[in-house]
Amino acid sequence: MTIDSKLQAELIRVAHLLAQAARPETLRHFRAAGLVAQDKGAEAFDPVTIADRAAEEVMRNILARERPNDAILGEEYGATSGTTGLTWVLDPIDGTRGYISGTPTWGVLISVADDSGPLFGIIDQPFIGERFVGGFGLAEVTGPTGIHSLTTRSARDLSEAIILTTFPEVGTKPEEHAFHGLAKRAMLTRYGMDCYGYALLAAGQVDLVVEAGLNAYDIQAPIAVIQAAGGIVTDWRGGPAHHGGRALAAANRDIHAQALTILHELIND
Amino acid sequence: MTIDSKLQAELIRVAHLLAQAARPETLRHFRAAGLVAQDKGAEAFDPVTIADRAAEEVMRNILARERPNDAILGEEYGATSGTTGLTWVLDPIDGTRGYISGTPTWGVLISVADDSGPLFGIIDQPFIGERFVGGFGLAEVTGPTGIHSLTTRSARDLSEAIILTTFPEVGTKPEEHAFHGLAKRAMLTRYGMDCYGYALLAAGQVDLVVEAGLNAYDIQAPIAVIQAAGGIVTDWRGGPAHHGGRALAAANRDIHAQALTILHELIND
Repeated sequence: MTIDSKLQAELIRVAHLLAQAARPETLRHFRAAGLVAQDKGAEAFDPVTIADRAAEEVMRNILARERPNDAILGEEYGATSGTTGLTWVLDPIDGTRGYISGTPTWGVLISVADDSGPLFGIIDQPFIGERFVGGFGLAEVTGPTGIHSLTTRSARDLSEAIILTTFPEVGTKPEEHAFHGLAKRAMLTRYGMDCYGYALLAAGQVDLVVEAGLNAYDIQAPIAVIQAAGGIVTDWRGGPAHHGGRALAAANRDIHAQALTILHELIND
Repeated sequence: MTIDSKLQAELIRVAHLLAQAARPETLRHFRAAGLVAQDKGAEAFDPVTIADRAAEEVMRNILARERPNDAILGEEYGATSGTTGLTWVLDPIDGTRGYISGTPTWGVLISVADDSGPLFGIIDQPFIGERFVGGFGLAEVTGPTGIHSLTTRSARDLSEAIILTTFPEVGTKPEEHAFHGLAKRAMLTRYGMDCYGYALLAAGQVDLVVEAGLNAYDIQAPIAVIQAAGGIVTDWRGGPAHHGGRALAAANRDIHAQALTILHELIND
């Protein structure tokens, strides 16, 4: 669908409202004593905190007021239908394991999509006070050292690349095998960054982020921010990644092609 | 040696001067375009940045002026002898791999020791603006959400514990094997935190940090901060860890004992 500049400005404004409202809700319980993760049951370890739900609630309340006819897909409260063709995709705390460990690598993920995928996204890190924004002509980060434009890294050989994923098991056994087949050809592999890894890719700090087992709300905001900064995000076969599953986020088409060839060769399905 | 309260206050003051001076030196090059790690040669991948050297230089200049008779052990410029019985131990950028990847998990490590080990330490994270301090009766963190006292977690079963290390290979193959034998019995294992992991332990967020292949300057400041917060740091046999090598940092004596038993059983030397 066509989004005119007035609607773009409106969506940008609302996205920042959401991010701003989520900050105190997530920070209120961050590093608080006695925070107990609830087990949602389906996953082996999928903690949901009070903060996760509270942050999604305040964002939904703002959308009900500001954008009542848009659809919403949220991690905690599921899908709400709309009539405008636009869907807000919300992950109030992406990286709940990082959150309960006190690490500042979790984030609030906010994006707005049409049928073609995410159009605009925010990766917000409330504790650091760092907000990565991409889409509608914007690609920038605001943080402790001011405002900087986001530009992904230039092309280089995989042997000189930095690759990130959140945990070494990655996903299924074949996914783990394929990831490590790729990672061992890179210069440096780092773990543990949750959604902050995608922000670092957009900021030109690393070359590749490779993950699996994602939900749509885990990846749509990162896609918007990374694409705006000059990067590319696909699944492990080069197809769209915004529905979730496996993601290959790359700083440029060259390193994306190098990684895709290896992942395609190593994944046996 | 006996450190009277006047000398304690003096050492605390100088330690903060060092941390404050190191901040702009480390931040000047953090996430800067074109930062190229130099290979020191001995290790497979041991980047040294311009920032690392500049930060140690400014700290040494302050010590030359403020504490000219104390000894210094620094990561970049080695050992300088002294006459007071006190040694400043400096790691200007601990976590250089995290630094070159743009992650905010590296830190400036500053401590002052006598023959018995570290007396006072600082783990400073310049980008977040977070400073963890421990020793001489102090155990506190100053950061984006204000000042908080540091208290390690209470005892719990290993099956409910969070364990951190920086990278899944840990160290040698036997060290890797022992670590994972321990980690698989914990609730959650997270990677990638560099020295920030020790700070999180002091802050009561995690139960264990287990690493190997450390140098004295990697671990002395963490020891001071963690001990001040109520935790315990030893090597994998229960002996002193402040000379480097293997470190087992624990929130309390109970979880330390549980971890020590398993590591001792699994490490074959």
